[in-house]
This record gives sequence, C-alpha cells and structure tokens, in this order.
Amino acid sequence: MRIAPDQVTRITSIGGGPIGGGWSAHFLAQGYDVISYLHDPAEEAAFRAIIDTAWISLETLGLKEGASRDRLTICFDLEEAVADTHFVQESAPEVLDLKQALYTILGMAVPEGVVISSSTSGLTMTEIQAHCSSPERTIVGHPFNPPYLLPLVEIVGGAKTWPEALSWARDFYEIAGKAPLVMNKEIPGFVATRLQEALWREALHMVANGEATPEQIDIALINGPAPRMAMQGQCMAFHVACGEGGMATNLDQFGPALQLPWTRLEAPELTKELRDRMVKGCDSIAGNRHFTEMAAERDRGIVGVLKAVRDARGT
Amino acid sequence: MRIAPDQVTRITSIGGGPIGGGWSAHFLAQGYDVISYLHDPAEEAAFRAIIDTAWISLETLGLKEGASRDRLTICFDLEEAVADTHFVQESAPEVLDLKQALYTILGMAVPEGVVISSSTSGLTMTEIQAHCSSPERTIVGHPFNPPYLLPLVEIVGGAKTWPEALSWARDFYEIAGKAPLVMNKEIPGFVATRLQEALWREALHMVANGEATPEQIDIALINGPAPRMAMQGQCMAFHVACGEGGMATNLDQFGPALQLPWTRLEAPELTKELRDRMVKGCDSIAGNRHFTEMAAERDRGIVGVLKAVRDARGT
Repeated sequence: MRIAPDQVTRITSIGGGPIGGGWSAHFLAQGYDVISYLHDPAEEAAFRAIIDTAWISLETLGLKEGASRDRLTICFDLEEAVADTHFVQESAPEVLDLKQALYTILGMAVPEGVVISSSTSGLTMTEIQAHCSSPERTIVGHPFNPPYLLPLVEIVGGAKTWPEALSWARDFYEIAGKAPLVMNKEIPGFVATRLQEALWREALHMVANGEATPEQIDIALINGPAPRMAMQGQCMAFHVACGEGGMATNLDQFGPALQLPWTRLEAPELTKELRDRMVKGCDSIAGNRHFTEMAAERDRGIVGVLKAVRDARGT
Repeated sequence: MRIAPDQVTRITSIGGGPIGGGWSAHFLAQGYDVISYLHDPAEEAAFRAIIDTAWISLETLGLKEGASRDRLTICFDLEEAVADTHFVQESAPEVLDLKQALYTILGMAVPEGVVISSSTSGLTMTEIQAHCSSPERTIVGHPFNPPYLLPLVEIVGGAKTWPEALSWARDFYEIAGKAPLVMNKEIPGFVATRLQEALWREALHMVANGEATPEQIDIALINGPAPRMAMQGQCMAFHVACGEGGMATNLDQFGPALQLPWTRLEAPELTKELRDRMVKGCDSIAGNRHFTEMAAERDRGIVGVLKAVRDARGT
C-alpha cells in the first residue's frame, strides 16, 4: 500500500548525473531522508559536488525545517536502495533497453504501490514500463534543468499506469515544493520542451540563414520576452496586454497575423473552437481579477526579475 | 546635422497608445525633456494614466538624476512637436498608408539629420519610408511590450537608410537605458517576435489538438524555461548545461533530436557550417569564463528571478 503524499519521509533517487544529483539535492532541501543509488562508486565525488553546488542556491531559496545534507545516504545496491522507500525518482541514462531492464528490477523490488517516477525527457512510459511486473504505479515525472531550481515537473502515465498513481504524484510533488503539471496525453517532448524546442528550431533557422547570430538571439530573449514570461506565461501575457478584451481581442484582431511568415512554423487554423478554448482558458486563469490588477502584478514581477538578473550579473 | 548621442536632451514621442505612452514614460525616467504628440485631445487622460502607471515601476527600477514627469509636454501640433527635437520615436497605428503620410510630413518637418525611429512591429522601413523626402535617417526601433520595462529595442533600416543612422541609434538607445540589437537584415517579425511566435504557434497547435490547455502552457513556461531564459538566452543555456563541451557537445550529441517530432516546426539541416556558427557564437559570448562560473551566475540569477516572481505574487 502506498502511504499518503504528506506522510512521505524517505525518498530514493536513482542516478548519479546532473538530474539525479539535482533531484537528490532538492529532496534533501525539502527535509526528506534521501537514499541515492549510484551505479558506480567512481561517480560519488562528482555526485557530491553537484549536491554541494545546488545547496548554495537551495539555502538562498529557503530550506525546509530539518533539511540537511546529512540525511543523504549513498547506496550502490539497487534493491537495498529501494527496499524501504516511499517514493522513487529515477534518472538513469536515456537508453530504452537500460530503462526497461531497470524497471523489471524496480517492479519487483520497490514496495507494493510505491510510485516510481522517471525523469525521462525523450522516452514514453508506455515503452519504459513494457517489461515491468507492476507498471500501474510507474509514471513520468519530468523535471526541467536545473532540477534543483526550476519548479516544473511534467507528469504523464503510460498505457498501463493507473490514474491514482498520477494524482498521488501530483499531490506529492506539490507538497515537495514542485509545480506539477499533469498532462492529458503522452506526447513527444511533453509541454515545456515542445514550446522551447519550437523557439530553438526557429533560432537555428535564423542562424543558418544569416538572419541572426547566437549572441543576437540571446540578447533578444533576455531583454524581450523572457523577463515577462517568467512572470506571466505567453497566454496570459497576450490576454492581459489586450486590456478589457483579453484573449478574444488578441485572436480576433491579430488572428490574421498567424498567417504572416513571422516564423517557419505554420500556425494551426484559427477555428471558432480553438478561439473559444483559448479565451475560456485565459478567463479561467484570470478568475475575477481585473486586467489592470494583473498588469500591475506583471509589472512588479518584471521589475523584480530585471533587478534579480542585474544583481546576479553584478552590473 | 544630428548631435552626438550623448548630447541628446529633447525627445519627441509620437502616439498616444500604450507604446507611445510607454516610450514617453521611459524617456522621462531617463531624464530627458519629452514632447509627446497626440492626435486628439481626447486621448490625453488615458495617455497620462499610462505614464502614471509606468512611473511606479520606473521609480522602483531607479530614475536618472533630474528625471521628472514635469518635463513632459503634450502637443497636438505635429510640426511644432518635432520643430526643435533631437530624436523622434514614432508609435502611430500600424497602418501603412497612415505611416507613409506621416513620414512624408516628418521627412520635411524634423530637423535635418535627426533620427526618426518607428516602433512598428509588422511593417518594414523600406515600405514606411517610401514617400519620405529624407529617408536616410529613418529606422525601425522596435520595443517589446511593456516598452517602459523590457529593455530590448530591435534596430533595422530600410533600403534607403544610411548605416550611420543605425549606429547613431544603437549608441543613443544604449545611453538611454535600452538594450539595442542592430539586425543584419529586414526580416518579418525581427528576432524576438519570431522566436516568441514560434513558441506561440506551437502553443496554439497543442490547444487545438487537446494536448494542453492555456493554463498548462503557462504553468510549463513560468516554472520551466522562462526563469532560466530571463537570465541566460537559449543558446547560452544549452552551452553552459553541456559543461566543458558546451554547444559543440549539445549539437553533436543532441543533433539527431532535431529530427524528432518535438514540435511542429521542422529543424534546419544541421550542416557543419551551422554547427560551427553556433559553437563560435557561444564561445564568443562566453569569452574566457569557465562554464562553472557561468553556471553559478545562472543559478544566482534563477534564484533571484524565482524570488522576485514569488514576491510579486505575494505568495
């Protein structure tokens, strides 16, 4: 039986690389006992260095009561590492055969019902769980790099995953200081990477065509959309920028611009259904807040973001 | 004759909307005398409200010595507004006929050599300057919304623009507290909007296909790529994340992922030339800084950005 998300005290993190190390540091900072499984004792020094680097930032963000690096146990025996655990975060290399073999062992060794979450970015859980004897509790919990800092965890199941495992994981990650996003479907790249990848491919096209240099691309992002996007996602940025009319005004007025060659990515057809989904989605995020209130919040956020970046650069 | 960029004291801002108002507020905060031309006296109240709203943020970011809203003059006569000016920022409605007629007047009324910069986002200067009698000093200086906060100004000329006007504008905007980006070519959407638009179109595709809701898209951005991108552009984010190997490792190792269906945007062919441009570009931004130093700076920045967003939300 799995315990309630708020009763978790012991976590197993599998993998000695930057993702496994980042997760271990995050869970330690959240006040958990963490057992980190490393494949090879030779990885230990680099692994501890990742945690020590992360700790500098985690201390500044604020540790949970009782959080300590002393609560880390490094373990080189996989079955021992998971024997008495409440949650497993797996960050092994992105090789399907390897992951499948790992989940065959985990499926038997991890206590019944305990959720096993994979950090995979390129594989689906349907593939990974194929040879696992208890696939119903295996999920993807995909972090964003660096995982000890960025809050996002994209959660999605495979074909054999039970819905309860997903809702348990959503509740657990939220308690554990993350921003969980439960996805409706298994899609390649999940949500955040798809958005970032579209931007990245456009950037590569521009460099390939001599339209911009890497430096110009980074200047444009850092000084343009990014400080705003850290405070407001792109949907709400357009919603709030259009004042009273919100997203409806944006789409009705600027819809034709979707046909302009403003990127190599062709836009979907702006059907009434898509328009309404966008409008309803933004209205629901806004709740009963007036756009002036959201714009003021946005401005306070951007001012803070700009100052934070300035401070970090020492300029 | 145009004066040196650091000798500018008087600026004319044309347009009473959010962009014209945002520019006026920014230049006032930078300690300039600003004459704002409004088309219609009925616009004045809303225009002053934009400036007052912007002023809250501008005070927090820090005003230049002597900066004051008392140094704003509102003027309803276009020729009078530009008669004695050192620089013109034009933010009239995005209608080509209207802009062309405006530039016909400005070409004659603005003192010789004084740079006239258009905030246009959708038109090219080649089109706008077509009927202007002194097109050589007309440029695009495209801000990002909100223009009183986001530092980016994308600068590009039209077919008849002299290169000196572009370099003068770059120097001037930098002195005036902006982050200028001089573009190599007139391309639709400039740099920042093309990148943002690629991301936006992918977001619309995901909503159209039921793969994500607007809320999920915004959660993904705010908690994933955006806080990092505010500190490090996407090129340097990948460069630094790959450690010693930098962008070369990124492209050589993850190049095949460009063929994966991680967005609807097809990637360009990763030729040796493109690879080398990316690598050289990142190496040049990095200078002689080691990746560990840049990663530490990134982490300090992200920590500050996350705290700033938290503070602005009051959470």
